[in-house]
Amino acid sequence: MDLLEIKAVNTDVQRWLATAATNLRQHLTAHFQVQTKSGRNDLVTNFDKETEHFLVDQIRHSFPNDQIVSEEGFGDQVQQMSGRVWFVDPIDGTLNFVKQRNDFAMMIGLYEDGRNVLGYILDVMDNKLLWGGPSVGLHLNEEAISGPANEPLAAGLFGVNGPMFATNRESVRDIAFASSGARILGSAGLEFQHVILGRQVGYISRLMPWDFAAGKILAETAGLSVTTIDGDPINMLKSQTVLVTTHHALPEIQRIRQS
Amino acid sequence: MDLLEIKAVNTDVQRWLATAATNLRQHLTAHFQVQTKSGRNDLVTNFDKETEHFLVDQIRHSFPNDQIVSEEGFGDQVQQMSGRVWFVDPIDGTLNFVKQRNDFAMMIGLYEDGRNVLGYILDVMDNKLLWGGPSVGLHLNEEAISGPANEPLAAGLFGVNGPMFATNRESVRDIAFASSGARILGSAGLEFQHVILGRQVGYISRLMPWDFAAGKILAETAGLSVTTIDGDPINMLKSQTVLVTTHHALPEIQRIRQS
Repeated sequence: MDLLEIKAVNTDVQRWLATAATNLRQHLTAHFQVQTKSGRNDLVTNFDKETEHFLVDQIRHSFPNDQIVSEEGFGDQVQQMSGRVWFVDPIDGTLNFVKQRNDFAMMIGLYEDGRNVLGYILDVMDNKLLWGGPSVGLHLNEEAISGPANEPLAAGLFGVNGPMFATNRESVRDIAFASSGARILGSAGLEFQHVILGRQVGYISRLMPWDFAAGKILAETAGLSVTTIDGDPINMLKSQTVLVTTHHALPEIQRIRQS
Repeated sequence: MDLLEIKAVNTDVQRWLATAATNLRQHLTAHFQVQTKSGRNDLVTNFDKETEHFLVDQIRHSFPNDQIVSEEGFGDQVQQMSGRVWFVDPIDGTLNFVKQRNDFAMMIGLYEDGRNVLGYILDVMDNKLLWGGPSVGLHLNEEAISGPANEPLAAGLFGVNGPMFATNRESVRDIAFASSGARILGSAGLEFQHVILGRQVGYISRLMPWDFAAGKILAETAGLSVTTIDGDPINMLKSQTVLVTTHHALPEIQRIRQS
C-alpha cells in the first residue's frame, strides 16, 4: 500500500475503534456473560465476542480479500503472511476487564506481505490510543510522539508474566531482578504501551499472535527491539515468548539468559 | 474529636492535598534530583522532600501539639499512639514516580489514641482521591461509595510485593496462585485503592507505617480486614508484612499459610 492508501485505512480503523470502545464503555454496567475457556482464569465474555464480531465485520466489508487472525473465532485460519493480514484482539486483559472493569486494551495490527503497516493499542477506559506504523510514525491520540530513550536494563521497570516471574521460567525472574523492579499489569497491550512510552524498559510474556501483533508494529516504529526471548525473529502465526525491550537492554538480557 | 471537628480537619486536609498535588503536577517536567537511600532502587527525589515539608508544615501550623510520622524526616520520633498521630507519605511509589511519572500516591492518615479517624490516598496523576473514616464514611472524590463485596480469594486479582512473590516468602506466591492472578503495581497506596474499590481481592507487602496508615483506615471503613500476614493486629509504629483482604479470603489465606 502507498501512503495515501495507508492514511485512508488509518481513518477507517480509528473510526471502528472509537465506535467499538464507546459501545463497550456504555454497556459496562450491563449483564456480563463470563465463560471459561482453557481454565478458570482464561475467560471470555459476551463483550469480547461482540466487539470482535463488530471489528471483523468492518474489516471484511472494507477489505473482503484480506485475511484476519483473531482471538474469539470470527477470523480465518491463516497459514501464511502473504498479502494483507489483520490481527484483532477485541479485549486484551480479559481478567482485568472482568475483575476490574479497567486496564484492558483493544488492539488491531495490519501487516502486508509480513511487513509492519499499522498498529493500534487502545486503553479503552483511559481512552488513550497509541497508533502508528513505519510510514505514518508514532502517535498518542492526536499527538505525534517519539520513541523512548535507549536505556539499559537497570534503568527501568520491567513488565513480566506473573507465573513466569514467580517460577523463573526462561530466566524471567533473573531478568526482572536486574531491572529497577518487576511490574505485572495483566494486559499485553498496556505493557507494550508502557515500554513504548518509556515507562518500562521491557516486557516479557508468553503471547498469542493477537496479543503481540499491534505492539510489535508500534514498538519497532518506536525504535525498540521485538524478538523471541532467544533474540530470534518473531513468527507472526504462532504462540511464543516475546521480548520487547531497548536495543541497549537486549544484549544484557541475552547475557543473563546464558549465564 | 467529634464529628464537627473531624469535618473541619477533613476540609483542611483536602485543601493541603489539592495544593500539593497541583504543585507536583505543574513541576513534573522540571529537573529531578534523584538520590538513592538504602539501595539502588530505594529512591528519594526533591519532590518527595518538598511535598513532605509542605504537608508537615500545614499540620504543625494547624495542630502544633500533634505527633507526625513521615517518610523523609520532617516528622517526629513517635514512640506511642496516644493523642493525635498523623502519618504522611508524600510520594508513595517513588520508583513509579521517577521512572513513569505516573502511578504514585500521596497519603495522609490520622489516628487518635490509636483509633482510625481519617485516611487519604490520592492517585496524583489521575486526580482520584479516596478518603474517609469511620465517622464520615468512604468517598471517591465527591462521591460517597460503599465497600467491596466480600469475595473469596479465588474470585479476585491479588496485589503482591514483587520479591516476596518471586521467592514465595511468607507463602505470598502460593496465596497469589490461589487467586485469579497476581498484579504488581509498585505503589502500596494504589494497591490499597484497588482492594477498597473491589478491583483486587487483597494485597500483601512488607510496609512501613506511612505506607499502610491511610490505607488501613480506609480499608477498615470499607469493611475489609487489615492485619499482619499472620492475622495479628497491626503495630502502627513498625515495619511489618501487611495483609489487606476480604473477611471471606482471610481464613483461606491463613489455611494456605499453615499448609
